[in-house]
Amino acid sequence: MDLFYVLLILLITTRAFGELAERLRQPSLVGELLAGIALGALVAAYPETFPAFVGLHDNEVFVTITDLGMFFLMLFAGLEMQPHKIVENAKSAIAVACGGMVVPLALGIAVGWAFLPEGDLRFAQCLFLGVALAITAVPATVRILMDLGQFHTKVGQTIISAAVFDDILSLVLLAWLTALMSLGGPPAALEIVFLIAKIAAFFAATAIIGLLVFPLLGRSMPHFREQEFEISAVFVSAFGFAVLAELLGLHFIVGAFVTGLYFGRKTIGGARFERIRSTTSAMTFGFLAPIFFASIGLDLNLTALFEAPVFVLVVVAMAFFGKMAGAGGAAKMIGTSNRNALAIGVGMSPRGAVELVIAGIALKAGLFAEAPPGDTVVGNMFSTVVIMAVVTTVLSPIILEKVFAAKPDGD
Amino acid sequence: MDLFYVLLILLITTRAFGELAERLRQPSLVGELLAGIALGALVAAYPETFPAFVGLHDNEVFVTITDLGMFFLMLFAGLEMQPHKIVENAKSAIAVACGGMVVPLALGIAVGWAFLPEGDLRFAQCLFLGVALAITAVPATVRILMDLGQFHTKVGQTIISAAVFDDILSLVLLAWLTALMSLGGPPAALEIVFLIAKIAAFFAATAIIGLLVFPLLGRSMPHFREQEFEISAVFVSAFGFAVLAELLGLHFIVGAFVTGLYFGRKTIGGARFERIRSTTSAMTFGFLAPIFFASIGLDLNLTALFEAPVFVLVVVAMAFFGKMAGAGGAAKMIGTSNRNALAIGVGMSPRGAVELVIAGIALKAGLFAEAPPGDTVVGNMFSTVVIMAVVTTVLSPIILEKVFAAKPDGD
Repeated sequence: MDLFYVLLILLITTRAFGELAERLRQPSLVGELLAGIALGALVAAYPETFPAFVGLHDNEVFVTITDLGMFFLMLFAGLEMQPHKIVENAKSAIAVACGGMVVPLALGIAVGWAFLPEGDLRFAQCLFLGVALAITAVPATVRILMDLGQFHTKVGQTIISAAVFDDILSLVLLAWLTALMSLGGPPAALEIVFLIAKIAAFFAATAIIGLLVFPLLGRSMPHFREQEFEISAVFVSAFGFAVLAELLGLHFIVGAFVTGLYFGRKTIGGARFERIRSTTSAMTFGFLAPIFFASIGLDLNLTALFEAPVFVLVVVAMAFFGKMAGAGGAAKMIGTSNRNALAIGVGMSPRGAVELVIAGIALKAGLFAEAPPGDTVVGNMFSTVVIMAVVTTVLSPIILEKVFAAKPDGD
Repeated sequence: MDLFYVLLILLITTRAFGELAERLRQPSLVGELLAGIALGALVAAYPETFPAFVGLHDNEVFVTITDLGMFFLMLFAGLEMQPHKIVENAKSAIAVACGGMVVPLALGIAVGWAFLPEGDLRFAQCLFLGVALAITAVPATVRILMDLGQFHTKVGQTIISAAVFDDILSLVLLAWLTALMSLGGPPAALEIVFLIAKIAAFFAATAIIGLLVFPLLGRSMPHFREQEFEISAVFVSAFGFAVLAELLGLHFIVGAFVTGLYFGRKTIGGARFERIRSTTSAMTFGFLAPIFFASIGLDLNLTALFEAPVFVLVVVAMAFFGKMAGAGGAAKMIGTSNRNALAIGVGMSPRGAVELVIAGIALKAGLFAEAPPGDTVVGNMFSTVVIMAVVTTVLSPIILEKVFAAKPDGD
C-alpha cells in the first residue's frame, strides 16, 4: 500500500468534508462518512486513476490503521467516562440494551423470513440479518455524541452504557450465528454458558487490575525515569486489555474502552491525566478517527439498491424502527421523557464498524453463495447490510441534532 | 499479525529495558535495542512459543508500524530544529557529511576488495559494503542526541545537519548501486544529473510551501471550526512532503523532517506549536520509537560472527574508524576541538534504519546469491551488515555519553 499517499488523500478529504459539514451545522462525522462515500464512488468510476485505493478494504495495512482508529476512539471514550457513571446508569442502560437488541433481532429474522427463498441456509441468513440489525456501532455512537456535545449528559451516558452492553450481548448472538454457519445447528447450551463465563472473567480481571494495580502504577509513576512513561503505561494497559478481551471472546474495542474507564484523574494525577487525554484526543480526532469513518463510507456499494430496492428499503426502515421501538420503547417504559426516549432510539441506531467485519466474515463463509435462480435477495444481502450500516451512521447524527435541538420535555 | 499482542510485548519489554538502561546511566535507546535483541534471540530459540514474532520483519503491518516510528521521530526532530540553525551550520555540516561519507565508502570498497572472491558481482558487492558503511542512521542519531540532552548544543546541531546531508548524499550512492545491481554497469551521467535535479526540486518546492503556505495556514487556523485541526494540518503537510520526497527519489523521512522544520512557533503560534510538539513527543517516545528501535534489534542474526568472524570484526571496526576519520577528521580540519570532533565522529556512527532496508533489497536482488565453493564471506554479507548496524547503534550512545562527560577542551 502507498501508505503516505493513501493517508494524505483520506485525511485531507475527510477534514475538508468535515469542515463543510460543520459549516452546514452538521456533525463532522457526517462529512467524514460522505468523504469516504465520494472517494469510493470516484475510485469505482476511475480505478486506473486511483490504483492505490482499489481493494483498500482488504488491505491488511489499511485495516490495521482503521483498527487503530477504533482503538483510539474507544480508549478516549473510556477516558471521558467514569465507571461510577456506568454503575449509576446500569439499570436503564441494561433495559435499553436488551430492548434495543431483542426487537431489531426479531424484526431482522421476520424480514428475512419474508424475503428470503427456501433453502438450507435460510435460518442462518435470517439470523444474520437479525444480528446485523441488533448491533449498535459503539465507536460511531461515541463520536456522534461528542460531535453534538451530548457525551456527558444523562441521555448521552445512558446511550454509551447501553451501546457497550449491546456490544457484549451481541457476542452471544454472534456465537450463535457462528455455530449455525460452521456446524449447521445451534451451539450447545454449554458453549453459551462458557462464553458468558469468559465475559464475566474479563470484567472481573479488568476490575481487579483497574482498581488495584492502576492506582499503584499511578503512585509509582514519579519514580520512573523514562521519558513519556505515562503514555506508555496507558498503551501497555490498553494493549493488554485488548489482548485479554480477544482471548476471552470479546472484541478488542471493549478492552480499550475499559482501560480508559479505569485510568482516571484520581488514579494517575490530574496533570498526567490531561496529558494522556490531550494526546489521545489529538491522535483520534486529528488523524485516526476520520480515516476510520472514511473507511466505512469507502465500503459502500449501491448494487443492492438497484437489484433489490424493496428489500433494501425495508431493511433500512426496520433498522431505525427496531432501535426506536426497542431501545426507545424500553427507555420510555422506565420513565424517560418522550424527547429523550427518541434520542436514545436514534442514538442507538448507527451500525457500521464491527457489523461490516461480521458481514465480511459471513460473506467469506459462503452464507450468501447459494441463491436459487431468479432470486435477487440472497446475492444482495451483503451489499444491503453495508448500505444499512452507512445510511444509519450518516442519518443518526443528522436526526439526533434535530432531536436535541427540540425543547426538553422534562426528565 | 496479532497486532495488539505484538505491540504489548514489544512496548512492555522496550520500556522495561529502557528504564534499566537509564538506571545504569545509559541512554534508553540502548535498552530498547537490547530488548529487541533479547526478544529476537528468544524467538529464534523457541519459535513455537512465540509464533506471532516469527518472520515479523517481513510482515507488512509490522513494517508499517516501524515506518510510522521513523516518520514520527523525524517529524519531531524537525519540530525541535529551526531552519536557520541548519543554514548557520551548513558549512561545517556539509564538510562533516562529505568526509563522513567518502572515507567509509572508500574503506568499505577496500575491505570488500580484500575479502570478497572474484566474480561478476564483486564490484557491486564492494560498493554495497561501501554504501553500508557510508550511511548514517538519522533517526538513531536524533534519538541518541535527545537521550543525552545534546540535541540543542552546537555539536548536536552539527551532527544532525550533517546526518541529514549524509542522507541526501547517500541517495546518489544508492542510485549508483541500484544501477549496478539492475543494469550491471554504472548509471549514465544523465541519470545522476536528473537525480540531483529532483533532489533540488524537492527542497525548492518544500521551501516555497514551508515559507509561503505554512504561515498562511497558521494565520487561518483560528477560522477553522473542526476539532484538532492543527494536528491534522501537520499530518497532512507531513504526509504530503513524504509523498513528494518519495516521488522525487528521496526517502520519506526527509519529508517528515522538513515538515517539522517549517512548522515553527512563529508559523502557527506558541500554544498550537506546544500542542503539536507534545502530541508528537508522546506518540514518538511513548509508543512508536521504542518499537522501531526494538525492530532493529530483532533483525540481528549472529551467524556471520561464527562463520566469518574476521570479516565481521574488520567491518565493525571500519564502521567506527571510517566515521571517526572521515566525519571527525573533517570537523577537526575546520577547527573543531578534539573532544567535539570525536563526538561528531561517534555521533555519525550509528547505522540501522534505512541501511537495513537497503541490505534487504540487495539480498532480494540476489547480490549475495552466488558464492564460489568454500567462500564464507559472500553468504554472510547480509548478516555482517546487520551486525554492524546493530553494534554501531548500541555502542555509539554508550561511547558518546563518555565523550560528552569529558571536560570540553574549548571550541
